[in-house]
Amino acid sequence: MRELGRHLVVELWGCQQNLNNPEEIRKALVEAVRRAGATLIDVHVHTFNPHGVSGVAVIAESHISLHTWPEHGYVALDVFTCGEKVVPEAAFEVFRDLFRPQRTHLIEIKRGIQL
Amino acid sequence: MRELGRHLVVELWGCQQNLNNPEEIRKALVEAVRRAGATLIDVHVHTFNPHGVSGVAVIAESHISLHTWPEHGYVALDVFTCGEKVVPEAAFEVFRDLFRPQRTHLIEIKRGIQL
Repeated sequence: MRELGRHLVVELWGCQQNLNNPEEIRKALVEAVRRAGATLIDVHVHTFNPHGVSGVAVIAESHISLHTWPEHGYVALDVFTCGEKVVPEAAFEVFRDLFRPQRTHLIEIKRGIQL
Repeated sequence: MRELGRHLVVELWGCQQNLNNPEEIRKALVEAVRRAGATLIDVHVHTFNPHGVSGVAVIAESHISLHTWPEHGYVALDVFTCGEKVVPEAAFEVFRDLFRPQRTHLIEIKRGIQL
């Protein structure tokens, strides 16, 4: 049984900073791609009114996405990568530094399992 | 216990068409957003060489993403929506019609559960 990709589904709670900071989020997306050893195709960040930011990095190895809920101190992060050279956990660390959550919850889903 | 979002993680296997068709994938992303009752912010589609397409629709309610592996007849689809008016299952149906998979596997993850 072999999978095509690894998908980290991460919940960040009690985040203390940067949930409403699109510029820092954009920088972190680029840095997360670099640290994971992935190849950036495109990065898109959207700011909502009155608050909240969505960011997506499309990478050659799938994507990294996040959505922030400043009113709840919560961020939903997904790091979906394929290939054996990429380290999705390294991307997670970048966002932990960015948002400084008080607690996190991470599950990994194997994508494209070939039975 | 209440969640902020619903995230459908969908595997589509034995897909018979459109895995290498960025224009149809773009149209389907837009249609999936409409059918789910979501609000489109941006849609991005990237074609890989020699094959494979990645597409992301950023929506006001989070995102829809997909990645195709034509060489495996496989598509990885994510439909992540927040709010009670959006129906993520309706988006899934659009992609089932687009790719005509022989089998699918869907799990739902509740995102942002407030304990």
